Amino acid sequence: TPTFRIAVIPGDGIGKEVMPEGLRVVQAAAARFGFELDCRVFDWASADYYAAHGQMMPDDWKEQLKGVDALYFGAVGWPATVPDHVSLWGSLLKFRREFDQYINLRPVRLFEGVPCPLAGRKPGDIDYLVVRENTEGEYTSLGGVMYAGTEREIVIQESVFSRHGTDRVLRFAYETARARERRHLTVATKSNGIAISMPWWDGRADAIGLDYPEVTVDKQHIDILSARFVLQPTRFDVVVASNLFGDILSDLGPATTGTIGLAPSANLNPERRFPSLFEPVHGSAPDIYGQNIANPIAMIWSGALMLDFLTQGQSAGRAAHDAILGAIEAVLRDGPRTRDLGGSANTTEVGIAIAERV
Amino acid sequence: TPTFRIAVIPGDGIGKEVMPEGLRVVQAAAARFGFELDCRVFDWASADYYAAHGQMMPDDWKEQLKGVDALYFGAVGWPATVPDHVSLWGSLLKFRREFDQYINLRPVRLFEGVPCPLAGRKPGDIDYLVVRENTEGEYTSLGGVMYAGTEREIVIQESVFSRHGTDRVLRFAYETARARERRHLTVATKSNGIAISMPWWDGRADAIGLDYPEVTVDKQHIDILSARFVLQPTRFDVVVASNLFGDILSDLGPATTGTIGLAPSANLNPERRFPSLFEPVHGSAPDIYGQNIANPIAMIWSGALMLDFLTQGQSAGRAAHDAILGAIEAVLRDGPRTRDLGGSANTTEVGIAIAERV
Ligand SMILES: CC(C)[C@H](C(=O)O)[C@@H](O)C(=O)O
Ligand SMILES: CC(C)[C@H](C(=O)O)[C@@H](O)C(=O)O
Repeated sequence: TPTFRIAVIPGDGIGKEVMPEGLRVVQAAAARFGFELDCRVFDWASADYYAAHGQMMPDDWKEQLKGVDALYFGAVGWPATVPDHVSLWGSLLKFRREFDQYINLRPVRLFEGVPCPLAGRKPGDIDYLVVRENTEGEYTSLGGVMYAGTEREIVIQESVFSRHGTDRVLRFAYETARARERRHLTVATKSNGIAISMPWWDGRADAIGLDYPEVTVDKQHIDILSARFVLQPTRFDVVVASNLFGDILSDLGPATTGTIGLAPSANLNPERRFPSLFEPVHGSAPDIYGQNIANPIAMIWSGALMLDFLTQGQSAGRAAHDAILGAIEAVLRDGPRTRDLGGSANTTEVGIAIAERV
Repeated sequence: TPTFRIAVIPGDGIGKEVMPEGLRVVQAAAARFGFELDCRVFDWASADYYAAHGQMMPDDWKEQLKGVDALYFGAVGWPATVPDHVSLWGSLLKFRREFDQYINLRPVRLFEGVPCPLAGRKPGDIDYLVVRENTEGEYTSLGGVMYAGTEREIVIQESVFSRHGTDRVLRFAYETARARERRHLTVATKSNGIAISMPWWDGRADAIGLDYPEVTVDKQHIDILSARFVLQPTRFDVVVASNLFGDILSDLGPATTGTIGLAPSANLNPERRFPSLFEPVHGSAPDIYGQNIANPIAMIWSGALMLDFLTQGQSAGRAAHDAILGAIEAVLRDGPRTRDLGGSANTTEVGIAIAERV
């Protein structure tokens, strides 16, 4: 049997509560479809580890992850004890960069049984994919403060876009769009206000687009694009965006489908030179942690994306993915449901229900 | 009678169609409440002017605007003939900066008679104010391209935040929140990803907040904040944001109330050292221009904000503002309506209906 080595990193808060359910479901799928997941749990990349060691991860974290095929990641961040930018830059954002996970893939879909916050929308109306650049752009710690601590303080923050980094995410998005039925790509931009990087980004989108005449493209400024996620969600198929814009759109999109609690993400190194990382879009949610009420579906769906990616080209992986998605659909329709969806089931009950259907 | 000098700048596209209705209504209000508007129309800050002169505005534009109390501005941008970043940086963004209009005030409100894209929301549920920084931050033309034109291209884009610029918009937002009933301020941030400017911005929000113990504050990352505009709009009162984040939130907010076609904005220099500028949030909308079907309400509401600001401290201005808002409310409820709201009236008919009620 094919075996995949998974690094399991629960992280903080509800990451620790949803992870067992994610594991329960992917293990059930592996058992059914004939492959093996060799899981090892790591307690670092967490605020607890930080409290004990003064850093988010051990110095030899890469060593420890040697030979791993994928990271299955809960959620990280615990602002009460570690400032967010410290915890994130010391773990999640490090993985994305050092493992060159340059694609962040975030499907947005409205399910039957999930009350939609948009009036009159039904399953099928909202079904698109956000392809987010995941290693550069607006997320940097470059720049600094001049006249620090005085009234004259001036802060410079630099964004960095490389042609290498931009072209590959655009190309991935065009490829993805071309493989879909509608073959439509929306390019997020803000070239009317952000005057150096964004006009250049638009130019790269045009240049790469020459290779994909079958794909229809429209560029939209991020302000009106956000508005259209609400007003005209049916028009989207694949949406490609920079790191920051992709971050915004991939929270906003899921919000229009009812809850962030369902949204999964795949942080991919498509060439498989490094392990990819699969995590829910939601965070560690300190406000609800400890009650076992968090919705585990985003974690579970992320696990489905992991199996699909790991077994690429093998029908068992796709079948496992589809079986999990089918089970999620069924449970969303028929229950049990967690509180965020108006139910009263706890995290474990939903996990068990999905695993049983798989 | 108090007289105010208004520079009328219709700009491009539907800016030219909605402006006459804006003027119709503000003139009606001025006549009724006893002040005079001395309006002068300028044809520059438009793509037509650009086509004839190779620049968006004449060299002596400041000279020409001498003594003006406010700019009443339609919309600018005509990508078919001028790239957006050229038209905007050559006009609107120049006004905002050179006239130091550092506050961009954008009310978001759900009206009776306007179908809400959010399920189950009624007038009163969505009623908040976005206070956007308007002169610095992410909107710059600083930075550049290295190895231009080669595969190794690297683009640097700089954002600039000054303590001067940040503190004054935060203070304005705290003041505004304190004067309202709920006294709640939401601070948009992204300090977990944008590692230099945003943690610093958070620190300034804390520092200024010390002077406003009556105001409750929560900081929210822009991704989840965008999601909550859709999922929990009732929780917002005043929202303060950087230039880019404010831009996004002030399109998204109006979208949740049904249409961008209603949203007004006030670009303020609160000290009145320079004229302030009043404009709809929507753009020039090339796709519907020429048919006289654009909704003029954003233009008209912006006019109401203008009268209120111009006559500050005088009851006539506030009364004029309230009369216009009342007329807008009545027309939204009873019609006539433009197409974007499901009606069949044209731009002029809606303008006349509102002016008559004033
Ligand atoms: C046209 C554009 C430069 C402008 C902005 O981004 O500020 C517009 O979207 C706005 O919100 O006024
Ligand atoms: C936690 C944060 C740094 C992260 C991001 O902004 O990338 C998160 O919001 C996400 O979308 O994965």
